[in-house]
Amino acid sequence: MDTTAIAVQLQNVGKEIGNISFTTNNLWMMIATALVFIMHLGFATLEVGLTRSKNTVNILFKNSIIPAIGILTYAIVGFNLMFPGSQFAGGIFGFGGFGIKAGTVGLTSAYNPNFTYWTEFLFQGMFAATAATIVSGAVAERIKLNSFLIFSLLFVSISYPITGMWKWGGGFLETLGFYDFAGSTLVHSVGGWGALTGILFLGPRLGKYGKKGKINPIPGHSMPLAAIGVFLLWLGWFGFNGGSVLSANPGAVSLVLVTTSIAASAGAVAAMFTSWNLFKNPDITMVFNGILAGLVGITAGADLMSPMEAIAIGTISGVLVTLMVPLFDKMKIDDPVGALSVHLVCGIFGTLAVGIFGIKAGLGQLWIQIQGIFWVALFSITFSSLVWYLLKKTIGIRVSEEEEEMGLDLSEHGMESYPDFEKVI
Amino acid sequence: MDTTAIAVQLQNVGKEIGNISFTTNNLWMMIATALVFIMHLGFATLEVGLTRSKNTVNILFKNSIIPAIGILTYAIVGFNLMFPGSQFAGGIFGFGGFGIKAGTVGLTSAYNPNFTYWTEFLFQGMFAATAATIVSGAVAERIKLNSFLIFSLLFVSISYPITGMWKWGGGFLETLGFYDFAGSTLVHSVGGWGALTGILFLGPRLGKYGKKGKINPIPGHSMPLAAIGVFLLWLGWFGFNGGSVLSANPGAVSLVLVTTSIAASAGAVAAMFTSWNLFKNPDITMVFNGILAGLVGITAGADLMSPMEAIAIGTISGVLVTLMVPLFDKMKIDDPVGALSVHLVCGIFGTLAVGIFGIKAGLGQLWIQIQGIFWVALFSITFSSLVWYLLKKTIGIRVSEEEEEMGLDLSEHGMESYPDFEKVI
Amino acid sequence: MDTTAIAVQLQNVGKEIGNISFTTNNLWMMIATALVFIMHLGFATLEVGLTRSKNTVNILFKNSIIPAIGILTYAIVGFNLMFPGSQFAGGIFGFGGFGIKAGTVGLTSAYNPNFTYWTEFLFQGMFAATAATIVSGAVAERIKLNSFLIFSLLFVSISYPITGMWKWGGGFLETLGFYDFAGSTLVHSVGGWGALTGILFLGPRLGKYGKKGKINPIPGHSMPLAAIGVFLLWLGWFGFNGGSVLSANPGAVSLVLVTTSIAASAGAVAAMFTSWNLFKNPDITMVFNGILAGLVGITAGADLMSPMEAIAIGTISGVLVTLMVPLFDKMKIDDPVGALSVHLVCGIFGTLAVGIFGIKAGLGQLWIQIQGIFWVALFSITFSSLVWYLLKKTIGIRVSEEEEEMGLDLSEHGMESYPDFEKVI
Repeated sequence: MDTTAIAVQLQNVGKEIGNISFTTNNLWMMIATALVFIMHLGFATLEVGLTRSKNTVNILFKNSIIPAIGILTYAIVGFNLMFPGSQFAGGIFGFGGFGIKAGTVGLTSAYNPNFTYWTEFLFQGMFAATAATIVSGAVAERIKLNSFLIFSLLFVSISYPITGMWKWGGGFLETLGFYDFAGSTLVHSVGGWGALTGILFLGPRLGKYGKKGKINPIPGHSMPLAAIGVFLLWLGWFGFNGGSVLSANPGAVSLVLVTTSIAASAGAVAAMFTSWNLFKNPDITMVFNGILAGLVGITAGADLMSPMEAIAIGTISGVLVTLMVPLFDKMKIDDPVGALSVHLVCGIFGTLAVGIFGIKAGLGQLWIQIQGIFWVALFSITFSSLVWYLLKKTIGIRVSEEEEEMGLDLSEHGMESYPDFEKVI
Repeated sequence: MDTTAIAVQLQNVGKEIGNISFTTNNLWMMIATALVFIMHLGFATLEVGLTRSKNTVNILFKNSIIPAIGILTYAIVGFNLMFPGSQFAGGIFGFGGFGIKAGTVGLTSAYNPNFTYWTEFLFQGMFAATAATIVSGAVAERIKLNSFLIFSLLFVSISYPITGMWKWGGGFLETLGFYDFAGSTLVHSVGGWGALTGILFLGPRLGKYGKKGKINPIPGHSMPLAAIGVFLLWLGWFGFNGGSVLSANPGAVSLVLVTTSIAASAGAVAAMFTSWNLFKNPDITMVFNGILAGLVGITAGADLMSPMEAIAIGTISGVLVTLMVPLFDKMKIDDPVGALSVHLVCGIFGTLAVGIFGIKAGLGQLWIQIQGIFWVALFSITFSSLVWYLLKKTIGIRVSEEEEEMGLDLSEHGMESYPDFEKVI
Repeated sequence: MDTTAIAVQLQNVGKEIGNISFTTNNLWMMIATALVFIMHLGFATLEVGLTRSKNTVNILFKNSIIPAIGILTYAIVGFNLMFPGSQFAGGIFGFGGFGIKAGTVGLTSAYNPNFTYWTEFLFQGMFAATAATIVSGAVAERIKLNSFLIFSLLFVSISYPITGMWKWGGGFLETLGFYDFAGSTLVHSVGGWGALTGILFLGPRLGKYGKKGKINPIPGHSMPLAAIGVFLLWLGWFGFNGGSVLSANPGAVSLVLVTTSIAASAGAVAAMFTSWNLFKNPDITMVFNGILAGLVGITAGADLMSPMEAIAIGTISGVLVTLMVPLFDKMKIDDPVGALSVHLVCGIFGTLAVGIFGIKAGLGQLWIQIQGIFWVALFSITFSSLVWYLLKKTIGIRVSEEEEEMGLDLSEHGMESYPDFEKVI
């Protein structure tokens, strides 16, 4: 064997190693995609569990159609808005053209050493749809189906990708040094702003707020469904945060899974103690919210934190969510599933936490984080408000009082979710 | 270091690379197996969700036992019927002997560079059981438990592996050039034929079809359970189609996941619009069926299609399923969960789609596809009919009218599914 | 290219191969961790499904908090109790200090060629929490929430890691040659002993045992929830047993998945026939128990058995569980979900099976297995009894009769699980 033959063989070996590395990393990204997909089932069961049985079909309908709309519109415009390749207009807006097409390069590691074009599209598309799903729960039990679907379509195909591009597509927030690992701001607070504006344009559910500041609790109809939702969301977060490493790097991914799970755990325990002390009841919905709060809170910096810092972030998130749920009610902001307290409040806190805890902590970073939160908020609020406003002025966004009393299942879908069972209401 | 030593080292490097490649590919196949497994839970919750609460224990019982029977019989005869090694009788029938045994080669890449003997057995066994599960929903609410179990046992251990062998085991349909990537025909239409013959031998449920062609809807008892089923089936399809690549090849698997998810999404949206227009109601069961229709439709050619072609296939499937559900009812073919419209009709359409869309499209391929559908249908219908006939003549296949009124939970199992809740019926 | 340059390149190639191998193996361990995590949802839905609707919030609360407590305490003390590094006191007790910290080595294959420190922590932490969850179902419907939480905290953070260390941490049972692949003893019987002592200290539920030995069945309130639980547990066992290989070794992991699934299947079929013959009813809860029994039974030797031996172990486990459930009732040991029959009895049987079936079978091994079971039992019973005793003497462990009648959802949490539905009881 001469050295020339050896050199050729070594080159082949290098190629083969590259192929396997590509395959392994891409494998993780595909699994992460499947995990993010199952979050849609988590959101669906959580939201129906925390609302009344007369609106169950309606919520399931919305949450079944959202991933479909999300994936299709992401294929048509979203992906190319979020990853336009070469931005223009100062990193504020860019568009790579309609439709998706991998070409032959897109199937190989020439596109990216860790995943194919198709894997990236599907992972990011599953992500995009979650932002719209966050809105779904907050506006539940009184929104018109057609208006909600139009809002979701525009929100997921235009608003979410544009602000997403600012950071993940290489836009001006990336240039600024804004840090948001897996989307406390870019996904969760974005969904939260869409939810907040929706709630404000819709108003509270009938009977939620009585005279003299009386708040009438409207309990959800199935705690097992809510529990299924929370556990599936935690499971999905393995892919949401773990996949955001964008490779199967063992140290990075496993640390992220640890900080994510620890923050969820700390959020659960903190919410339990806070609610037990404040409301004298170990409230299961607060434990659920605490888990989700911890998950949202750690998301912006899941790769930057030590386990101890993850405990701190999860604990603060769990306390925050337990305090914010009654506070929103005092402000007569009627959010049936606590989406604002979880996704908006803890999304913002988690983004700030990057400047407070972990290896990037510092006043400079904190200031950058505040700017990122602000610009994303400004755009999302403006966009959402405009869409809600136009929908309200045209086809209307709220069902009639009779329809709301009857429940959206019968009024919007002409069917019941549980026809075999006697209902109290 | 002399060149001989280098040559030895290079050889070792080659072996190690082969080992890791084997490990990575096998890893994906094992995960795909787990994903196909969870489809059984998806079928279970979908079917109970779409039927009445008085038959819930019975359906859960069937769907819990089917994977068990499927795996055990696949170990005893099915696997060796489907992959007999060297066929005889012109690629129509072959048998590799009773029982499974890997030997030492079966644990290594010498068996297959991408998976072990055990991985292949379990992946294929999980697949096999799904064909029987498809039948379960169609014959629900009136079939005798013991007859159903005997049918399933024979169907999954003999009928399914024989027609499966024709293509995937290297039989005459493979020789013919028939294409069925992950089983629109070999799994879904096979299950569909078993379902259709079962329905015809059983007749409709009591009260389903009234006088003068009146069709009485029998709504399912839990839309959340149905939704859980649909989402788990979509998730499982990541493994069903993605695993059918039979390796973790990044380009191939990620494209398959994209076409699969896009077809599901297009099916959902198409079914939504079709049902909204035709029945003036956004019917959630049609959205569920639309998702499944898109998944079944893309299955035969998931690796051949572009995203745009996946949209076309998903859309047609979604329209088809929405039209077929009422059409079967007009023909008094009583299919409680829409299994025929989803698995049989879209299974056939998806198989034909290989000759219409994608890189294999052409009249020649279309003609081959038709032949494949025909031969598999002929065998499956004959086999199923024979079994149903013999069961009907011996132990009977239908419960008495009293038992059907009472519900199979009480009559067949002596227990209720929801003893704590007041029932309407 | 000279031989020196080639040698350098070969060295680099070796490093890269090591990196990918590390990445692939670690990837499987992370996925296995996610699968074990989802077992907590499986336990939650199984337990609520098999108990009454008036105690649903309470059980969900416990099962949502347990993984949180488990992960947090495992981070603080459990992991370092279980894997103390260098044991003292004769392999009976060791402690590696408070808190977890990977350091830079912990992120690389220098810690372990197959997984990072963080991956090991999270995988083992998810495992640990399952032991406490087993107790939850057995003591359901009458235990005080705060007492249960304190018991769980101590059990999962101190008792479980100490007995776990005896084998998996390199303690005296490892030295002895005790074999327990994935924890029939170390996880399932440990949980079972905690459950048994809890039941004995608590006593049976009100009304369960009447005069003259009359046993009043208290049926669970939702078979679909129970089914979801069983399927998720089976799915989770892919990670529980498959991950216990501690690498992605294709032959070893795929064999384990096959024996695991075959044992579950055999357990289901055996329990079906046994209950159908004995009780003249095809009892769905026995099929559920049969699946779980097969899974627990195979766990100690899943890597040692042939498929045929897995069938034997699964079958025996399925028969055992069906006989033990009524036997415990005869002994007035009130176990609402059959946790003792599944986890304790089949955990012990599975551990003994290592000495009876498979490649380690022999009287010598059997005797060692008996010793292992004995020592773990002794410690677990002593520890649990002490904690239960102290709790009973201080804050009390059982709710009042009024609270038990009313249900723990209202009495302990002030809320209902299904407020929209009319209840029979």
